Amino acid sequence: MNAPTGSSRVTVRVRFCETDLMGIVHHASYLAYFELARVEWLRRRGVTYAEWAAQGLHLPVVEATLRYRAPARFDDLLTVEVTLDELRSASLRFGYRVLRRDEVLVEGMTRLACVDAHTRVRRMDEAMTTALTAPETPGYEGAL
Amino acid sequence: MNAPTGSSRVTVRVRFCETDLMGIVHHASYLAYFELARVEWLRRRGVTYAEWAAQGLHLPVVEATLRYRAPARFDDLLTVEVTLDELRSASLRFGYRVLRRDEVLVEGMTRLACVDAHTRVRRMDEAMTTALTAPETPGYEGAL
Amino acid sequence: MNAPTGSSRVTVRVRFCETDLMGIVHHASYLAYFELARVEWLRRRGVTYAEWAAQGLHLPVVEATLRYRAPARFDDLLTVEVTLDELRSASLRFGYRVLRRDEVLVEGMTRLACVDAHTRVRRMDEAMTTALTAPETPGYEGAL
Amino acid sequence: MNAPTGSSRVTVRVRFCETDLMGIVHHASYLAYFELARVEWLRRRGVTYAEWAAQGLHLPVVEATLRYRAPARFDDLLTVEVTLDELRSASLRFGYRVLRRDEVLVEGMTRLACVDAHTRVRRMDEAMTTALTAPETPGYEGAL
Repeated sequence: MNAPTGSSRVTVRVRFCETDLMGIVHHASYLAYFELARVEWLRRRGVTYAEWAAQGLHLPVVEATLRYRAPARFDDLLTVEVTLDELRSASLRFGYRVLRRDEVLVEGMTRLACVDAHTRVRRMDEAMTTALTAPETPGYEGAL
Repeated sequence: MNAPTGSSRVTVRVRFCETDLMGIVHHASYLAYFELARVEWLRRRGVTYAEWAAQGLHLPVVEATLRYRAPARFDDLLTVEVTLDELRSASLRFGYRVLRRDEVLVEGMTRLACVDAHTRVRRMDEAMTTALTAPETPGYEGAL
Repeated sequence: MNAPTGSSRVTVRVRFCETDLMGIVHHASYLAYFELARVEWLRRRGVTYAEWAAQGLHLPVVEATLRYRAPARFDDLLTVEVTLDELRSASLRFGYRVLRRDEVLVEGMTRLACVDAHTRVRRMDEAMTTALTAPETPGYEGAL
Repeated sequence: MNAPTGSSRVTVRVRFCETDLMGIVHHASYLAYFELARVEWLRRRGVTYAEWAAQGLHLPVVEATLRYRAPARFDDLLTVEVTLDELRSASLRFGYRVLRRDEVLVEGMTRLACVDAHTRVRRMDEAMTTALTAPETPGYEGAL
Protein backbone atom coordinates (compact mmCIF):
# COMPACT_ATOMS: atom_id res chain seq x y z
CA MET A 1 0.00 0.00 0.00
CA ASN A 2 2.83 2.37 0.59
CA ALA A 3 6.50 3.26 0.57
CA PRO A 4 9.10 2.99 3.31
CA THR A 5 10.47 6.04 5.04
CA GLY A 6 13.54 7.00 6.97
CA SER A 7 15.49 5.53 9.79
CA SER A 8 16.34 6.66 13.28
CA ARG A 9 19.25 5.76 15.50
CA VAL A 10 18.57 5.37 19.19
CA THR A 11 21.16 4.85 21.91
CA VAL A 12 20.66 2.40 24.74
CA ARG A 13 22.96 1.43 27.62
CA VAL A 14 22.89 -2.27 28.58
CA ARG A 15 21.56 -2.78 32.11
CA PHE A 16 23.01 -5.27 34.55
CA CYS A 17 19.67 -7.05 34.87
CA GLU A 18 19.60 -7.66 31.10
CA THR A 19 22.56 -10.03 31.25
CA ASP A 20 22.42 -13.75 32.00
CA LEU A 21 24.78 -16.31 33.48
CA MET A 22 26.66 -16.57 30.17
CA GLY A 23 27.81 -13.02 30.98
CA ILE A 24 26.12 -11.60 27.90
CA VAL A 25 22.87 -9.80 27.17
CA HIS A 26 19.99 -12.27 27.29
CA HIS A 27 18.52 -12.82 23.84
CA ALA A 28 15.03 -11.67 24.89
CA SER A 29 16.36 -8.24 25.92
CA TYR A 30 16.70 -7.22 22.28
CA LEU A 31 12.92 -7.25 21.85
CA ALA A 32 12.84 -4.58 24.56
CA TYR A 33 15.53 -2.61 22.70
CA PHE A 34 13.59 -2.90 19.45
CA GLU A 35 10.48 -1.69 21.26
CA LEU A 36 12.04 1.37 22.87
CA ALA A 37 13.72 2.29 19.58
CA ARG A 38 10.33 2.06 17.83
CA VAL A 39 8.78 4.37 20.43
CA GLU A 40 11.60 6.87 19.89
CA TRP A 41 11.26 6.54 16.11
CA LEU A 42 7.62 7.58 16.51
CA ARG A 43 8.43 10.41 18.92
CA ARG A 44 10.89 11.90 16.44
CA ARG A 45 8.03 12.04 13.91
CA GLY A 46 5.70 13.81 16.32
CA VAL A 47 3.90 10.73 17.65
CA THR A 48 3.71 9.98 21.36
CA TYR A 49 2.81 6.31 21.32
CA ALA A 50 1.66 6.55 24.95
CA GLU A 51 -1.11 8.89 23.75
CA TRP A 52 -2.21 6.48 21.06
CA ALA A 53 -2.25 3.71 23.67
CA ALA A 54 -4.22 5.87 26.11
CA GLN A 55 -6.79 6.39 23.34
CA GLY A 56 -7.10 2.65 22.88
CA LEU A 57 -5.03 2.42 19.71
CA HIS A 58 -2.36 -0.24 19.92
CA LEU A 59 0.32 -1.61 17.65
CA PRO A 60 0.90 -5.14 18.98
CA VAL A 61 3.75 -7.19 17.57
CA VAL A 62 2.37 -9.99 15.39
CA GLU A 63 5.66 -11.30 14.05
CA ALA A 64 9.30 -10.97 15.07
CA THR A 65 12.59 -12.32 13.83
CA LEU A 66 16.02 -11.89 15.36
CA ARG A 67 19.47 -12.93 14.17
CA TYR A 68 22.21 -12.77 16.77
CA ARG A 69 25.67 -12.15 15.26
CA ALA A 70 27.73 -11.30 18.36
CA PRO A 71 26.95 -10.81 22.03
CA ALA A 72 26.48 -7.46 23.75
CA ARG A 73 27.71 -7.11 27.31
CA PHE A 74 26.80 -5.25 30.47
CA ASP A 75 27.26 -1.49 30.19
CA ASP A 76 27.79 -1.53 26.41
CA LEU A 77 26.50 1.59 24.74
CA LEU A 78 24.46 0.26 21.84
CA THR A 79 22.88 1.95 18.86
CA VAL A 80 19.58 0.64 17.62
CA GLU A 81 18.99 1.60 14.02
CA VAL A 82 15.30 1.30 13.24
CA THR A 83 13.67 1.69 9.83
CA LEU A 84 10.06 1.55 8.72
CA ASP A 85 10.29 -1.00 5.95
CA GLU A 86 6.65 -1.40 5.03
CA LEU A 87 3.46 0.50 5.71
CA ARG A 88 0.10 -1.08 4.94
CA SER A 89 -3.43 0.02 5.76
CA ALA A 90 -3.52 -1.86 9.07
CA SER A 91 0.03 -3.04 9.68
CA LEU A 92 3.64 -1.91 9.64
CA ARG A 93 6.98 -3.63 9.50
CA PHE A 94 10.13 -2.24 11.12
CA GLY A 95 13.68 -3.47 10.55
CA TYR A 96 16.39 -3.19 13.22
CA ARG A 97 20.15 -3.36 13.51
CA VAL A 98 21.77 -3.24 16.93
CA LEU A 99 25.33 -1.94 16.73
CA ARG A 100 28.26 -1.44 19.08
CA ARG A 101 30.23 1.20 17.25
CA ASP A 102 30.47 -0.26 13.72
CA GLU A 103 29.82 -3.86 14.62
CA VAL A 104 26.37 -5.29 13.94
CA LEU A 105 25.41 -7.47 16.92
CA VAL A 106 21.79 -8.27 16.16
CA GLU A 107 19.46 -7.79 13.20
CA GLY A 108 15.75 -8.26 13.21
CA MET A 109 12.30 -7.16 12.23
CA THR A 110 8.90 -6.86 13.84
CA ARG A 111 5.54 -6.69 12.11
CA LEU A 112 2.89 -4.76 14.01
CA ALA A 113 -0.86 -4.77 13.57
CA CYS A 114 -3.02 -1.73 14.16
CA VAL A 115 -5.83 -2.63 16.58
CA ASP A 116 -8.33 -0.90 18.83
CA ALA A 117 -8.81 -1.44 22.55
CA HIS A 118 -10.76 -4.64 21.85
CA THR A 119 -7.94 -6.08 19.71
CA ARG A 120 -9.97 -5.60 16.54
CA VAL A 121 -7.96 -4.70 13.45
CA ARG A 122 -8.50 -1.12 12.34
CA ARG A 123 -7.17 0.81 9.34
CA MET A 124 -4.83 3.66 10.07
CA ASP A 125 -6.32 7.05 9.36
CA GLU A 126 -4.62 9.75 7.34
CA ALA A 127 -3.14 11.54 10.35
CA MET A 128 -1.40 8.35 11.39
CA THR A 129 -0.12 7.60 7.92
CA THR A 130 1.16 11.15 7.57
CA ALA A 131 3.07 10.85 10.85
CA LEU A 132 4.50 7.49 9.89
CA THR A 133 5.82 8.76 6.57
CA ALA A 134 7.26 11.98 8.00
CA PRO A 135 11.01 12.44 8.25
CA GLU A 136 12.73 12.55 11.60
CA THR A 137 12.38 15.98 13.18
CA PRO A 138 15.66 17.79 12.47
CA GLY A 139 17.90 18.56 15.39
CA TYR A 140 16.37 15.90 17.60
CA GLU A 141 18.64 15.35 20.59
CA GLY A 142 17.44 11.86 21.09
CA ALA A 143 18.67 10.85 24.53
CA LEU A 144 16.47 8.20 26.15
CA MET B 1 -10.75 -6.42 61.28
CA ASN B 2 -7.71 -8.59 61.74
CA ALA B 3 -5.86 -11.83 62.52
CA PRO B 4 -3.43 -13.63 60.27
CA THR B 5 -4.21 -16.90 58.58
CA GLY B 6 -2.27 -19.81 57.18
CA SER B 7 0.62 -20.24 54.88
CA SER B 8 1.10 -21.88 51.53
CA ARG B 9 4.19 -23.35 49.93
CA VAL B 10 4.61 -22.86 46.22
CA THR B 11 7.30 -24.43 44.05
CA VAL B 12 9.12 -22.49 41.34
CA ARG B 13 11.92 -23.52 39.02
CA VAL B 14 14.55 -20.83 38.33
CA ARG B 15 14.57 -19.81 34.68
CA PHE B 16 17.75 -19.13 32.73
CA CYS B 17 16.61 -15.59 31.93
CA GLU B 18 16.29 -14.84 35.64
CA THR B 19 20.05 -15.11 36.19
CA ASP B 20 22.59 -12.34 35.70
CA LEU B 21 26.28 -12.16 34.86
CA MET B 22 27.20 -13.01 38.46
CA GLY B 23 25.77 -16.44 37.62
CA ILE B 24 23.05 -16.12 40.24
CA VAL B 25 19.38 -15.19 40.25
CA HIS B 26 19.01 -11.44 39.77
CA HIS B 27 17.69 -9.81 42.93
CA ALA B 28 14.62 -8.37 41.21
CA SER B 29 13.43 -11.85 40.20
CA TYR B 30 12.35 -12.56 43.75
CA LEU B 31 9.59 -9.96 43.50
CA ALA B 32 8.22 -12.05 40.64
CA TYR B 33 8.47 -15.18 42.81
CA PHE B 34 6.69 -13.43 45.67
CA GLU B 35 3.97 -12.36 43.25
CA LEU B 36 3.31 -15.76 41.73
CA ALA B 37 3.31 -17.34 45.18
CA ARG B 38 0.72 -14.78 46.31
CA VAL B 39 -1.48 -15.59 43.32
CA GLU B 40 -1.25 -19.29 44.18
CA TRP B 41 -1.96 -18.56 47.85
CA LEU B 42 -5.19 -16.89 46.73
CA ARG B 43 -6.08 -19.67 44.30
CA ARG B 44 -5.79 -22.25 47.08
CA ARG B 45 -8.36 -20.26 49.02
CA GLY B 46 -10.80 -20.15 46.14
CA VAL B 47 -9.78 -16.77 44.72
CA THR B 48 -8.74 -16.35 41.11
CA TYR B 49 -6.90 -13.05 41.23
CA ALA B 50 -7.24 -12.70 37.46
CA GLU B 51 -11.01 -12.46 37.96
CA TRP B 52 -10.65 -9.75 40.60
CA ALA B 53 -8.33 -7.87 38.22
CA ALA B 54 -10.77 -8.30 35.32
CA GLN B 55 -13.46 -6.75 37.53
CA GLY B 56 -11.23 -3.76 38.21
CA LEU B 57 -10.18 -4.78 41.69
CA HIS B 58 -6.44 -4.65 42.17
CA LEU B 59 -4.00 -5.30 44.96
CA PRO B 60 -0.95 -3.19 44.02
CA VAL B 61 2.21 -3.51 46.04
CA VAL B 62 2.73 -0.38 48.15
CA GLU B 63 5.73 -1.55 50.13
CA ALA B 64 8.29 -4.32 49.75
CA THR B 65 11.34 -5.46 51.66
CA LEU B 66 13.78 -8.20 50.74
CA ARG B 67 16.73 -9.68 52.60
CA TYR B 68 19.05 -11.84 50.54
CA ARG B 69 20.81 -14.53 52.59
CA ALA B 70 22.28 -16.75 49.88
CA PRO B 71 22.05 -16.84 46.09
CA ALA B 72 19.77 -19.10 44.09
CA ARG B 73 21.05 -20.44 40.79
CA PHE B 74 19.71 -21.41 37.40
CA ASP B 75 17.44 -24.47 37.48
CA ASP B 76 17.19 -24.54 41.28
CA LEU B 77 13.86 -25.84 42.47
CA LEU B 78 12.76 -23.28 45.04
CA THR B 79 9.96 -23.25 47.56
CA VAL B 80 8.25 -19.96 48.28
CA GLU B 81 6.53 -20.01 51.65
CA VAL B 82 3.95 -17.25 51.76
CA THR B 83 1.92 -16.20 54.78
CA LEU B 84 -0.77 -13.59 55.25
CA ASP B 85 0.64 -11.67 58.19
CA GLU B 86 -1.87 -8.85 58.45
CA LEU B 87 -5.33 -8.14 57.09
CA ARG B 88 -6.80 -4.66 57.37
CA SER B 89 -9.91 -3.14 55.85
CA ALA B 90 -8.11 -1.91 52.73
CA SER B 91 -4.66 -3.50 52.85
CA LEU B 92 -2.84 -6.77 53.44
CA ARG B 93 0.68 -7.77 54.29
CA PHE B 94 2.28 -11.01 53.17
CA GLY B 95 5.54 -12.46 54.44
CA TYR B 96 7.77 -14.70 52.31
CA ARG B 97 10.63 -17.12 52.70
CA VAL B 98 12.33 -18.55 49.63
CA LEU B 99 13.95 -21.89 50.37
CA ARG B 100 16.12 -24.40 48.56
CA ARG B 101 15.43 -27.54 50.50
CA ASP B 102 15.95 -26.40 54.11
CA GLU B 103 18.08 -23.36 53.38
CA VAL B 104 16.46 -19.94 53.52
CA LEU B 105 17.78 -17.90 50.58
CA VAL B 106 15.58 -14.82 50.73
CA GLU B 107 13.07 -13.39 53.19
CA GLY B 108 10.73 -10.54 52.54
CA MET B 109 7.36 -8.95 52.81
CA THR B 110 5.00 -6.99 50.62
CA ARG B 111 2.18 -4.74 51.69
CA LEU B 112 -0.68 -4.48 49.21
CA ALA B 113 -3.43 -1.90 48.99
CA CYS B 114 -6.92 -2.72 47.82
CA VAL B 115 -7.89 -0.32 45.00
CA ASP B 116 -10.45 -0.04 42.23
CA ALA B 117 -9.77 0.40 38.52
CA HIS B 118 -9.11 4.11 39.08
CA THR B 119 -6.50 3.41 41.78
CA ARG B 120 -8.86 4.66 44.51
CA VAL B 121 -8.56 2.85 47.80
CA ARG B 122 -11.58 0.68 48.57
CA ARG B 123 -12.47 -1.42 51.59
CA MET B 124 -12.59 -5.15 51.11
CA ASP B 125 -16.07 -6.60 51.29
CA GLU B 126 -17.04 -9.58 53.38
CA ALA B 127 -16.67 -12.11 50.57
CA MET B 128 -13.07 -11.00 50.09
CA THR B 129 -12.29 -11.09 53.78
CA THR B 130 -13.81 -14.55 54.08
CA ALA B 131 -11.68 -15.83 51.23
CA LEU B 132 -8.54 -14.27 52.66
CA THR B 133 -9.06 -15.86 56.06
CA ALA B 134 -9.95 -19.29 54.70
CA PRO B 135 -7.53 -22.17 55.10
CA GLU B 136 -5.78 -23.66 52.10
CA THR B 137 -8.08 -26.03 50.25
CA PRO B 138 -7.11 -29.52 51.42
CA GLY B 139 -5.49 -31.81 48.89
CA TYR B 140 -4.37 -29.00 46.66
CA GLU B 141 -1.77 -30.33 44.23
CA GLY B 142 -0.14 -26.99 43.77
CA ALA B 143 1.79 -27.27 40.51
CA LEU B 144 2.34 -23.93 38.85
CA MET C 1 23.68 -34.22 9.72
CA ASN C 2 20.86 -35.84 11.55
CA ALA C 3 17.19 -36.55 12.03
CA PRO C 4 14.67 -34.80 14.24
CA THR C 5 13.37 -36.45 17.34
CA GLY C 6 10.34 -36.20 19.53
CA SER C 7 8.44 -33.43 21.13
CA SER C 8 7.65 -32.51 24.70
CA ARG C 9 4.77 -30.56 26.15
CA VAL C 10 5.52 -28.26 29.05
CA THR C 11 2.97 -26.37 31.11
CA VAL C 12 3.49 -22.78 32.19
CA ARG C 13 1.24 -20.42 34.14
CA VAL C 14 1.31 -16.77 32.97
CA ARG C 15 2.70 -14.47 35.67
CA PHE C 16 1.28 -11.05 36.42
CA CYS C 17 4.62 -9.39 35.68
CA GLU C 18 4.62 -10.88 32.18
CA THR C 19 1.64 -8.79 31.09
CA ASP C 20 1.79 -5.25 29.73
CA LEU C 21 -0.57 -2.27 29.66
CA MET C 22 -2.51 -3.82 26.75
CA GLY C 23 -3.62 -6.37 29.35
CA ILE C 24 -1.98 -9.22 27.47
CA VAL C 25 1.26 -11.15 27.77
CA HIS C 26 4.14 -9.01 26.50
CA HIS C 27 5.55 -10.40 23.26
CA ALA C 28 9.06 -10.83 24.70
CA SER C 29 7.77 -13.18 27.42
CA TYR C 30 7.37 -15.97 24.89
CA LEU C 31 11.14 -16.20 24.45
CA ALA C 32 11.28 -17.01 28.17
CA TYR C 33 8.56 -19.65 27.70
CA PHE C 34 10.46 -21.16 24.76
CA GLU C 35 13.60 -21.23 26.88
CA LEU C 36 12.08 -22.95 29.89
CA ALA C 37 10.36 -25.46 27.64
CA ARG C 38 13.70 -26.23 25.98
CA VAL C 39 15.32 -26.79 29.39
CA GLU C 40 12.51 -29.19 30.31
CA TRP C 41 12.78 -30.93 26.93
CA LEU C 42 16.43 -31.63 27.76
CA ARG C 43 15.68 -32.72 31.32
CA ARG C 44 13.18 -35.30 30.07
CA ARG C 45 15.99 -36.76 27.97
CA GLY C 46 18.38 -37.00 30.89
CA VAL C 47 20.19 -33.69 30.34
CA THR C 48 20.44 -31.08 33.08
CA TYR C 49 21.30 -28.00 31.08
CA ALA C 50 22.51 -26.27 34.25
CA GLU C 51 25.29 -28.90 34.45
CA TRP C 52 26.32 -28.29 30.86
CA ALA C 53 26.39 -24.55 31.58
CA ALA C 54 28.41 -25.10 34.77
CA GLN C 55 30.94 -27.02 32.67
CA GLY C 56 31.22 -24.11 30.27
CA LEU C 57 29.10 -25.59 27.52
CA HIS C 58 26.41 -23.23 26.32
CA LEU C 59 23.69 -23.26 23.70
CA PRO C 60 23.12 -19.56 22.95
CA VAL C 61 20.24 -18.57 20.70
CA VAL C 62 21.57 -17.38 17.34
CA GLU C 63 18.24 -16.97 15.58
CA ALA C 64 14.63 -16.69 16.68
CA THR C 65 11.31 -16.19 14.97
CA LEU C 66 7.90 -15.72 16.55
CA ARG C 67 4.44 -15.47 15.05
CA TYR C 68 1.74 -14.20 17.37
CA ARG C 69 -1.74 -15.51 16.50
CA ALA C 70 -3.74 -14.57 19.59
CA PRO C 71 -2.89 -13.03 22.95
CA ALA C 72 -2.39 -14.94 26.18
CA ARG C 73 -3.56 -13.33 29.40
CA PHE C 74 -2.59 -13.23 33.05
CA ASP C 75 -3.04 -16.55 34.83
CA ASP C 76 -3.64 -18.52 31.62
CA LEU C 77 -2.36 -22.06 31.84
CA LEU C 78 -0.37 -22.50 28.65
CA THR C 79 1.17 -25.52 27.01
CA VAL C 80 4.45 -25.10 25.20
CA GLU C 81 4.99 -27.84 22.65
CA VAL C 82 8.66 -28.02 21.78
CA THR C 83 10.23 -30.17 19.08
CA LEU C 84 13.82 -30.66 18.01
CA ASP C 85 13.53 -29.98 14.29
CA GLU C 86 17.15 -30.13 13.25
CA LEU C 87 20.37 -31.40 14.77
CA ARG C 88 23.71 -30.50 13.22
CA SER C 89 27.25 -31.00 14.44
CA ALA C 90 27.40 -27.65 16.24
CA SER C 91 23.85 -26.30 16.18
CA LEU C 92 20.23 -27.26 16.82
CA ARG C 93 16.88 -25.87 15.85
CA PHE C 94 13.77 -26.17 18.01
CA GLY C 95 10.21 -25.42 16.94
CA TYR C 96 7.54 -24.23 19.38
CA ARG C 97 3.79 -23.91 19.61
CA VAL C 98 2.22 -22.17 22.59
CA LEU C 99 -1.33 -23.37 23.17
CA ARG C 100 -4.21 -22.51 25.47
CA ARG C 101 -6.21 -25.70 25.38
CA ASP C 102 -6.51 -26.36 21.62
CA GLU C 103 -5.86 -22.84 20.44
CA VAL C 104 -2.43 -22.01 19.05
CA LEU C 105 -1.43 -18.59 20.38
CA VAL C 106 2.18 -18.33 19.26
CA GLU C 107 4.44 -20.32 16.97
CA GLY C 108 8.15 -19.94 16.66
CA MET C 109 11.59 -21.42 16.36
CA THR C 110 15.01 -20.83 17.82
CA ARG C 111 18.35 -21.91 16.39
CA LEU C 112 21.05 -22.54 18.99
CA ALA C 113 24.79 -22.78 18.54
CA CYS C 114 26.97 -25.04 20.63
CA VAL C 115 29.82 -23.01 22.15
CA ASP C 116 32.37 -23.26 24.92
CA ALA C 117 32.90 -20.82 27.79
CA HIS C 118 34.82 -18.49 25.44
CA THR C 119 31.95 -18.42 22.92
CA ARG C 120 33.93 -20.54 20.46
CA VAL C 121 31.88 -22.94 18.36
CA ARG C 122 32.42 -26.55 19.32
CA ARG C 123 31.07 -29.77 17.84
CA MET C 124 28.75 -31.79 20.01
CA ASP C 125 30.23 -35.05 21.20
CA GLU C 126 28.51 -38.41 20.95
CA ALA C 127 27.12 -38.30 24.49
CA MET C 128 25.37 -35.04 23.69
CA THR C 129 24.02 -36.26 20.39
CA THR C 130 22.74 -39.43 22.02
CA ALA C 131 20.91 -37.42 24.66
CA LEU C 132 19.42 -35.08 22.07
CA THR C 133 18.07 -37.92 19.98
CA ALA C 134 16.68 -39.88 22.93
CA PRO C 135 12.94 -40.12 23.43
CA GLU C 136 11.27 -38.43 26.36
CA THR C 137 11.67 -40.48 29.52
CA PRO C 138 8.39 -42.37 29.94
CA GLY C 139 6.21 -41.45 32.85
CA TYR C 140 7.72 -38.01 33.28
CA GLU C 141 5.44 -35.92 35.47
CA GLY C 142 6.63 -32.69 34.02
CA ALA C 143 5.59 -30.03 36.52
CA LEU C 144 7.78 -26.94 36.38
CA MET D 1 33.40 3.33 59.24
CA ASN D 2 32.89 6.26 57.01
CA ALA D 3 30.86 9.24 55.92
CA PRO D 4 28.21 9.53 53.24
CA THR D 5 28.87 11.48 50.07
CA GLY D 6 26.86 13.20 47.38
CA SER D 7 23.94 12.33 45.26
CA SER D 8 23.40 11.95 41.55
CA ARG D 9 20.26 12.34 39.48
CA VAL D 10 19.77 9.95 36.59
CA THR D 11 17.04 10.13 33.97
CA VAL D 12 15.19 7.06 32.75
CA ARG D 13 12.34 6.72 30.28
CA VAL D 14 9.73 4.09 31.17
CA ARG D 15 9.63 1.27 28.63
CA PHE D 16 6.44 -0.33 27.39
CA CYS D 17 7.59 -3.75 28.59
CA GLU D 18 7.96 -2.41 32.12
CA THR D 19 4.22 -1.88 32.52
CA ASP D 20 1.68 -4.46 33.61
CA LEU D 21 -2.02 -5.05 33.06
CA MET D 22 -2.89 -2.40 35.67
CA GLY D 23 -1.49 0.05 33.10
CA ILE D 24 1.29 1.16 35.45
CA VAL D 25 4.95 0.35 35.88
CA HIS D 26 5.33 -3.06 37.48
CA HIS D 27 6.70 -2.77 41.00
CA ALA D 28 9.76 -4.92 40.26
CA SER D 29 10.92 -2.52 37.52
CA TYR D 30 12.06 -0.02 40.14
CA LEU D 31 14.82 -2.37 41.26
CA ALA D 32 16.14 -2.14 37.71
CA TYR D 33 15.90 1.67 37.87
CA PHE D 34 17.75 1.70 41.19
CA GLU D 35 20.43 -0.51 39.67
CA LEU D 36 21.04 1.55 36.56
CA ALA D 37 21.10 4.73 38.64
CA ARG D 38 23.72 3.15 40.91
CA VAL D 39 25.87 2.23 37.92
CA GLU D 40 25.63 5.83 36.67
CA TRP D 41 26.40 7.15 40.15
CA LEU D 42 29.62 5.13 40.05
CA ARG D 43 30.46 6.20 36.49
CA ARG D 44 30.19 9.85 37.48
CA ARG D 45 32.82 9.18 40.13
CA GLY D 46 35.20 7.55 37.70
CA VAL D 47 34.18 3.93 38.32
CA THR D 48 33.09 1.66 35.52
CA TYR D 49 31.27 -1.06 37.40
CA ALA D 50 31.54 -3.36 34.39
CA GLU D 51 35.32 -3.33 34.88
CA TRP D 52 35.00 -4.22 38.54
CA ALA D 53 32.65 -7.05 37.58
CA ALA D 54 35.04 -8.25 34.86
CA GLN D 55 37.78 -8.40 37.51
CA GLY D 56 35.57 -10.56 39.71
CA LEU D 57 34.57 -7.84 42.14
CA HIS D 58 30.84 -7.67 42.67
CA LEU D 59 28.45 -5.62 44.75
CA PRO D 60 25.41 -7.90 45.13
CA VAL D 61 22.27 -6.53 46.72
CA VAL D 62 21.80 -8.05 50.17
CA GLU D 63 18.83 -5.99 51.29
CA ALA D 64 16.26 -3.84 49.53
CA THR D 65 13.23 -1.83 50.60
CA LEU D 66 10.77 0.01 48.41
CA ARG D 67 7.84 2.25 49.24
CA TYR D 68 5.47 3.00 46.38
CA ARG D 69 3.72 6.38 46.71
CA ALA D 70 2.21 6.82 43.25
CA PRO D 71 2.37 4.88 39.99
CA ALA D 72 4.61 5.72 37.06
CA ARG D 73 3.27 5.09 33.58
CA PHE D 74 4.54 4.11 30.16
CA ASP D 75 6.79 6.72 28.56
CA ASP D 76 7.12 8.80 31.74
CA LEU D 77 10.46 10.52 32.00
CA LEU D 78 11.61 9.72 35.51
CA THR D 79 14.46 11.02 37.62
CA VAL D 80 16.19 8.61 39.96
CA GLU D 81 17.97 10.44 42.75
CA VAL D 82 20.56 8.16 44.27
CA THR D 83 22.65 8.86 47.34
CA LEU D 84 25.36 6.88 49.09
CA ASP D 85 24.02 6.83 52.63
CA GLU D 86 26.53 4.57 54.32
CA LEU D 87 29.97 3.23 53.48
CA ARG D 88 31.47 0.42 55.54
CA SER D 89 34.56 -1.69 55.01
CA ALA D 90 32.72 -4.38 53.04
CA SER D 91 29.26 -2.97 52.36
CA LEU D 92 27.43 0.13 51.14
CA ARG D 93 23.92 1.45 51.40
CA PHE D 94 22.29 3.61 48.76
CA GLY D 95 19.05 5.53 49.11
CA TYR D 96 16.76 6.31 46.16
CA ARG D 97 13.91 8.57 45.24
CA VAL D 98 12.15 8.16 41.91
CA LEU D 99 10.52 11.39 40.79
CA ARG D 100 8.29 12.55 37.96
CA ARG D 101 9.02 16.26 37.90
CA ASP D 102 8.56 17.20 41.59
CA GLU D 103 6.43 14.25 42.61
CA VAL D 104 8.07 11.43 44.53
CA LEU D 105 6.71 8.16 43.17
CA VAL D 106 8.93 5.61 44.89
CA GLU D 107 11.48 5.69 47.69
CA GLY D 108 13.82 2.93 48.63
CA MET D 109 17.21 1.70 49.64
CA THR D 110 19.54 -1.14 48.78
CA ARG D 111 22.39 -2.49 50.84
CA LEU D 112 25.22 -4.04 48.83
CA ALA D 113 27.98 -6.35 49.97
CA CYS D 114 31.44 -6.31 48.48
CA VAL D 115 32.37 -9.83 47.35
CA ASP D 116 34.88 -11.56 45.11
CA ALA D 117 34.12 -13.92 42.22
CA HIS D 118 33.49 -16.74 44.69
CA THR D 119 30.93 -14.71 46.65
CA ARG D 120 33.35 -14.33 49.55
CA VAL D 121 33.10 -11.04 51.41
CA ARG D 122 36.11 -8.81 50.84
CA ARG D 123 37.06 -5.44 52.27
CA MET D 124 37.14 -2.52 49.88
CA ASP D 125 40.64 -1.23 49.20
CA GLU D 126 41.62 2.41 49.36
CA ALA D 127 41.19 3.04 45.64
CA MET D 128 37.59 1.88 45.88
CA THR D 129 36.88 3.93 48.97
CA THR D 130 38.39 7.00 47.37
CA ALA D 131 36.19 6.59 44.31
CA LEU D 132 33.10 6.05 46.41
CA THR D 133 33.67 9.20 48.42
CA ALA D 134 34.52 11.38 45.42
CA PRO D 135 32.09 14.05 44.27
CA GLU D 136 30.28 13.72 40.98
CA THR D 137 32.51 14.75 38.08
CA PRO D 138 31.52 18.33 37.24
CA GLY D 139 29.85 18.93 33.91
CA TYR D 140 28.73 15.36 33.53
CA GLU D 141 26.16 15.15 30.74
CA GLY D 142 24.54 12.13 32.19
CA ALA D 143 22.58 10.59 29.32
CA LEU D 144 21.96 6.89 29.77
